[in-house]
Amino acid sequence: MVQLKQIKLLTTEYNQFILITEQVMGLVRESNIKNGMVHVITKHTTTGITVNESLECLESDIEEFLTRLVPEHLPYAHARMLPDYGSTAGNPTGHLKAHLTGNHCHFVISDGDVLKGDAQDIYFCEFDGPAQRTVLVQVIGE
Amino acid sequence: MVQLKQIKLLTTEYNQFILITEQVMGLVRESNIKNGMVHVITKHTTTGITVNESLECLESDIEEFLTRLVPEHLPYAHARMLPDYGSTAGNPTGHLKAHLTGNHCHFVISDGDVLKGDAQDIYFCEFDGPAQRTVLVQVIGE
Amino acid sequence: MVQLKQIKLLTTEYNQFILITEQVMGLVRESNIKNGMVHVITKHTTTGITVNESLECLESDIEEFLTRLVPEHLPYAHARMLPDYGSTAGNPTGHLKAHLTGNHCHFVISDGDVLKGDAQDIYFCEFDGPAQRTVLVQVIGE
Repeated sequence: MVQLKQIKLLTTEYNQFILITEQVMGLVRESNIKNGMVHVITKHTTTGITVNESLECLESDIEEFLTRLVPEHLPYAHARMLPDYGSTAGNPTGHLKAHLTGNHCHFVISDGDVLKGDAQDIYFCEFDGPAQRTVLVQVIGE
Repeated sequence: MVQLKQIKLLTTEYNQFILITEQVMGLVRESNIKNGMVHVITKHTTTGITVNESLECLESDIEEFLTRLVPEHLPYAHARMLPDYGSTAGNPTGHLKAHLTGNHCHFVISDGDVLKGDAQDIYFCEFDGPAQRTVLVQVIGE
Repeated sequence: MVQLKQIKLLTTEYNQFILITEQVMGLVRESNIKNGMVHVITKHTTTGITVNESLECLESDIEEFLTRLVPEHLPYAHARMLPDYGSTAGNPTGHLKAHLTGNHCHFVISDGDVLKGDAQDIYFCEFDGPAQRTVLVQVIGE
C-alpha cells in the first residue's frame, strides 16, 4: 500500500530550521499503514531535510556551522548572470548547504508507531528563503 | 512483506567507527525476503550511518576530517547549561558530525543477495560515546 | 512489485558530475510501476549520488567546495602503502568527498510520474576517476 501527502511551508527567513515531526507523524497515522516506512523528501535544491535534536541552541549551531563551511563572500561561479533566468543567481550557498545536509529522511513504522529515537526530530531546512516550499511524505507498507 | 530487527551496540570510544555489515547481511538472510530493500537507520542524533571502504587508515582519516571541520574548542551555543537536562550539554560536535554523516543507508536485495559493491561496508559512527546505541534494520520486499 | 536495473558509466575525469536524471526516469517508465519509490544507489565508495540543480556553474561550485573542504595535499593516513593492494592508495580525498555527498537518492512515483521538483536533477558524482562505475536503480511499488 502506498499513500502520498504533501506538507506546504512558507518560510520567512534566509536560513531557517522548521520542525515538521508532528506533521509527518500525523500523516503516518492518517495513512492507516501499520508496518512499513515513511519517506520525507523535499522538492527543492536550496533546502534540506535532516534529523536532529530539537533545541534552539543546536539549530543556531548547525546554521553557524554551515555558514562557516559555506561563507557568503566567496567568489562562487553560480553568483553571476544566468541568461536562462534573466537575472543574477544569488543562492550558491543554498545549493552547497543542501549538498551537505541531504534532501530526505526515513523512519520505520512498526505496529502503527513511528520508531523514532527520543531525541530525533525532523527538520525542514531553508537555505534560500523566504520561499514557498513543498515536502513529499510517502508512507509505504501494509 | 516487512521484517524489522535491531542491532544493539555498546560503544567504547568518544568517536568510533564500528562495522555492522555482517550483522545487517545476517538479518537480511533471516528475513527470507528475496527481492527488496534493506534500510539501516540509527535511533540517535549524535551518531551516523555511512557506507565506505573498511580500512583502518580510512576510519582515522574520516575521524580526523570530521574533527577538522567540527573542532571541539569552538564556542558552540549547545555547550551551555540546559535547564531541561539539569546539566551542561557537552556534545554539540556530535550533533554536527551527525549532520554531515547522515543517519541511514540502504542496500538493494536481489534474488536473496545484498547488492553491495566490493568496497562497500556499513559503518555505525559514534560521535558522543561511550553509549548504548540501537540501530533499526528493516527488510521490505517479496 | 520490485524492478531492478543498472546504469553503467565510464567516467573520464578525476572529479566529474554526470547527470543521470533521464536514464532514471526512463527506467521508471519501463518498470510499469505507477505508485511507489525509485531508489538510486551507487556501488562504489569514492563516488556519490546527489540531487541538485543542473547548472555548469553549480557543478564547478560543488567541485571547488568539496576540494576546499578536502584538499589533496593533507597528510591522510590512507595515502600510504597498502599491503593488501600491493600499492599505495592515492584516493583518500575521494572517500571523504563521498562521505560528505552520500551514496543514494530517492524519488516518489505517483500515478506513473516521478515527483521531482522543477530544479531537481540527479547527479552521479565521480571523485576518483576515470573509472567504470555502476549505479543500481530499484523501482518498488504497485
